[in-house]
Amino acid sequence: MPSVFSFPRRIEFCETDAAGIAHFSSLIIYMEQAEHALLRSVGLSVAASHSSGPNPVDPSAMAYSWPRVKVECEFCSPGRFEDIISVETTVAALGKKSITYQHHLSIGITTIATGKMTSVCCVREGGSLISTPIPQFIRELLHPFCSTL
Amino acid sequence: MPSVFSFPRRIEFCETDAAGIAHFSSLIIYMEQAEHALLRSVGLSVAASHSSGPNPVDPSAMAYSWPRVKVECEFCSPGRFEDIISVETTVAALGKKSITYQHHLSIGITTIATGKMTSVCCVREGGSLISTPIPQFIRELLHPFCSTL
Amino acid sequence: MPSVFSFPRRIEFCETDAAGIAHFSSLIIYMEQAEHALLRSVGLSVAASHSSGPNPVDPSAMAYSWPRVKVECEFCSPGRFEDIISVETTVAALGKKSITYQHHLSIGITTIATGKMTSVCCVREGGSLISTPIPQFIRELLHPFCSTL
Amino acid sequence: MPSVFSFPRRIEFCETDAAGIAHFSSLIIYMEQAEHALLRSVGLSVAASHSSGPNPVDPSAMAYSWPRVKVECEFCSPGRFEDIISVETTVAALGKKSITYQHHLSIGITTIATGKMTSVCCVREGGSLISTPIPQFIRELLHPFCSTL
Repeated sequence: MPSVFSFPRRIEFCETDAAGIAHFSSLIIYMEQAEHALLRSVGLSVAASHSSGPNPVDPSAMAYSWPRVKVECEFCSPGRFEDIISVETTVAALGKKSITYQHHLSIGITTIATGKMTSVCCVREGGSLISTPIPQFIRELLHPFCSTL
Repeated sequence: MPSVFSFPRRIEFCETDAAGIAHFSSLIIYMEQAEHALLRSVGLSVAASHSSGPNPVDPSAMAYSWPRVKVECEFCSPGRFEDIISVETTVAALGKKSITYQHHLSIGITTIATGKMTSVCCVREGGSLISTPIPQFIRELLHPFCSTL
Repeated sequence: MPSVFSFPRRIEFCETDAAGIAHFSSLIIYMEQAEHALLRSVGLSVAASHSSGPNPVDPSAMAYSWPRVKVECEFCSPGRFEDIISVETTVAALGKKSITYQHHLSIGITTIATGKMTSVCCVREGGSLISTPIPQFIRELLHPFCSTL
Repeated sequence: MPSVFSFPRRIEFCETDAAGIAHFSSLIIYMEQAEHALLRSVGLSVAASHSSGPNPVDPSAMAYSWPRVKVECEFCSPGRFEDIISVETTVAALGKKSITYQHHLSIGITTIATGKMTSVCCVREGGSLISTPIPQFIRELLHPFCSTL
């Protein structure tokens, strides 16, 4: 059984819209914030060199970037100001160069939204991002969250 | 051939992120803004009673809401501050109760992103939204943009 | 000495901009979120009827709204992705009909920004908001945070 | 009489909040977008080297940044989804190193908000921004919008 990463997130006023509910783009952003929190929980960041991080097996000075390539979400029920959304995240697929996260957002027993979001591992060369295989130490750090292994 | 609705949208500074590009959620929001502009172009709005609108065949005082139920996007190439994104929108599917819009975002000849977003026609009853068949006058107004007819 | 309400807030990726720092509007939004958290800490909300709240001395069914009328901020030092901003909030002025909050944002010993934001107590009459004296029970709940008493 | 730079901006749905109106932070963002549009109108950008721009009198390869140091806004009347806000912008003060813009937001004859926002001219040295006198060619380009000359 994979570990499920739990990320509670209160709906803020500026994230609601004139329909009185959290705008759907806010829910998508909560999914991204859960991904970043999951990465932090294992000592990683989407925006920093991993070489200076907690994992000494990667001696390179290389910084990985994770541009998003795909988002698929379904919205089931509305969330309102000050509700606390529970975001539960696993790694649905750990490809050679990409990670697909699976998110489930709920308030109590009510599902608010589900989503799958895919990012690609890249390194910066000149001004461009070039896709690259996910380093082994990152694979191992994410392994506990993989739902498909 | 369907009419393609064109919506130009400049990338604003607050919509970029620390990777130096438009955040993916900004691109999704441009898709929503293109939908709303398309609806305005035929005299509709996602947030107003159609009964007082341009179409006298709907005598009811009923207001339709269009909660979003599904979003699928792929992100192909980055956009940067002050780039002008051309959003091209058609109606990919006009179901009994739902509309699926298809969006293509480009800068010049470069595709930035594509997306499909589905909304459901609802009426408000008490505090809840209840799905309802899309009224015929709305179907007719959207007909020119339908790519599958 | 007034109580200072502390609200920690991590800078999220979508809140940064292409200059690599938290966009100034994000800092302003953190101030608003601190206000709402302060109100929650005493059982209030900007978006709910206080009549059903924790204070039984207000028997009316009246709901108060708090439209913002003034914002003044100074930005001193940048914040970056994943930094944790400490927002410290007091009530700088408790007028007959308005509240002015004072915010101090810091990362460690570095001041990031300061701000004063004023909201007016209103009730809804018809479709409009009419200003009204702040009820006594709200004054009392906010009293511990008042820096000028 | 200074030139007033006019920037029309439609209120988008995601910029409204559960009070049914444009969130105050959206109005502040419109002010920033008006500043950027004013700069574009004279061939400048907040995020690009001016050396490769339209003004050949600046032979350096230096890029100027304009971090915001102060914001003061008053909010007078609400704006709603699909309203078109007219933002009118002038340069209220052109200091040695800073620019203060003055903004007036209206819908028809109704003032929605006013604001003053100050940015400082900086150059990047190492990883930091150092304030620097505003170059003469920029002063001249902004001169027509100065309300205090």
